Amino acid sequence: HTGRAHRVGISGVPGVGKSTFIDALGMKLVEAGHHVAVLAVDPTSSVSRGSILGDKTRMQRLARDERAFIRPSPTSGSLGGVGRKSRETLLLCEAAGYDVVLVETVGVGQSETLVSEMVDVYLVLMLTGAGDELQGIKRGILEVADLVAINKADGDNVLPAERAQREYAAALHLMRGGRAGWAPPVLTCSGRTGAGLDALWDEVLRHRSEETAAGRLQAKREAQQVRWLWSLVDDGVKAALHRDPGRRAELAALEEDVRHGRLPAVRAAQRVLASLGLGRAQGAEPPAGPKR
Amino acid sequence: HTGRAHRVGISGVPGVGKSTFIDALGMKLVEAGHHVAVLAVDPTSSVSRGSILGDKTRMQRLARDERAFIRPSPTSGSLGGVGRKSRETLLLCEAAGYDVVLVETVGVGQSETLVSEMVDVYLVLMLTGAGDELQGIKRGILEVADLVAINKADGDNVLPAERAQREYAAALHLMRGGRAGWAPPVLTCSGRTGAGLDALWDEVLRHRSEETAAGRLQAKREAQQVRWLWSLVDDGVKAALHRDPGRRAELAALEEDVRHGRLPAVRAAQRVLASLGLGRAQGAEPPAGPKR
Repeated sequence: HTGRAHRVGISGVPGVGKSTFIDALGMKLVEAGHHVAVLAVDPTSSVSRGSILGDKTRMQRLARDERAFIRPSPTSGSLGGVGRKSRETLLLCEAAGYDVVLVETVGVGQSETLVSEMVDVYLVLMLTGAGDELQGIKRGILEVADLVAINKADGDNVLPAERAQREYAAALHLMRGGRAGWAPPVLTCSGRTGAGLDALWDEVLRHRSEETAAGRLQAKREAQQVRWLWSLVDDGVKAALHRDPGRRAELAALEEDVRHGRLPAVRAAQRVLASLGLGRAQGAEPPAGPKR
Repeated sequence: HTGRAHRVGISGVPGVGKSTFIDALGMKLVEAGHHVAVLAVDPTSSVSRGSILGDKTRMQRLARDERAFIRPSPTSGSLGGVGRKSRETLLLCEAAGYDVVLVETVGVGQSETLVSEMVDVYLVLMLTGAGDELQGIKRGILEVADLVAINKADGDNVLPAERAQREYAAALHLMRGGRAGWAPPVLTCSGRTGAGLDALWDEVLRHRSEETAAGRLQAKREAQQVRWLWSLVDDGVKAALHRDPGRRAELAALEEDVRHGRLPAVRAAQRVLASLGLGRAQGAEPPAGPKR
């Protein structure tokens, strides 16, 4: 019962107006007959910096609508844990009949990569002006966005937003060169007035239909699944390594030795693999034991 | 005896003129008293698509100069193997007294990430025109380059190259927003005439001195070492998993099941971890064995 929803990632730095935007877009979608789930992925929410969506009142209308489901970020502490819980929630939402899943991220650390690995289309919200608003947006993320929208395009900000739209469109076109496939559009919108939201959703639908027709949506989802499998294996190996407090301390010391050049990474990796009972440990010291 | 060289990554699609560029830059550097090593990282070289640097005659002057050392890409087959050998060669070159190591990559697959993980500064060579030249350049790479140079800025191409320089500079400035730290410059150069190579090397030196002063160079190298450690552990785990042909087939089947949605990734990961003797395997079937 999974796999039928539109999975939309929405990223943007704090202050870009994500909550108001999602509230407005979500209401438009439920009013058009969709069932909308909103998930948040914020690996910092557990470390006292305040959870996005921790306060449902930030999405006042959507939070009160029974056709919508809003879930704050899991607070598992580790990025791997947050990612796993978010994916499971996403699949649960699909199985429960939600046909649009909006996955919100503040885009710190690796959370943007994590979200882009679970959605079909990735929207980056921006503000006007080439000023400070990119602080915190990961380098490279604009170039890999599927859609870019200049938010808060209302009132006196309409003309500056349209200028920013043209500038970003030209820059993305240049950066993209002659690459085949989807050419990410740049739009303007306003979560506050609702302007531009219909056009933006039309682009989401156009992206889905083009990517589906080209076989790329299916290929993307399949590749995401396989990468997720291996990242879960990776997490499991790390968890196994860190389960024992003594070994945890040993690993931390090993990492410090590698960090400061006191131990070659190759040698350290052999030790880690040997401690897992893996690897052929060429060149490593023999395991400690009774003298022969 | 390692760690003292300038480690410079040089990326660009086939046709951008990398060999001529490296030949000219390398000669300039040896004539200024440097000892220059040129390494190539090309994970495709083993699969019949032709090795970059496989033919040393592509760098005619540098290949004949005893102050320079040119090494074609390792042809180990796997990206992990290529990366490991390249890093080891880089450290050997440093220990042997080469104070400039140029690491060339065609930038296919993950090779750009691999190279960026072993160098101090990352140069992307481009051509004029926003046409087909980006085909093959990984999305996001321009936004993470430390230096961008429009190559083949000679003859009739000088003015178009300067126009491209201005356009890319404006685009990168916009994409970068208000981020702190190094602002990647865009230059023009010609491997054929040598124009712009001095200015380009000056930018490499300025990058090194700014990054060193800010403590970022040391931090970058330390983080690279730690990430390398964990990627070696990851490689070791995968190698252990694939060593036995029977298990290899099992894994391939498992991956296919995950790819096509027949098995949840979480369940598949539990099986992989259990087969490694790791993990607590919650929810997994008990291991096969005699009926009780």
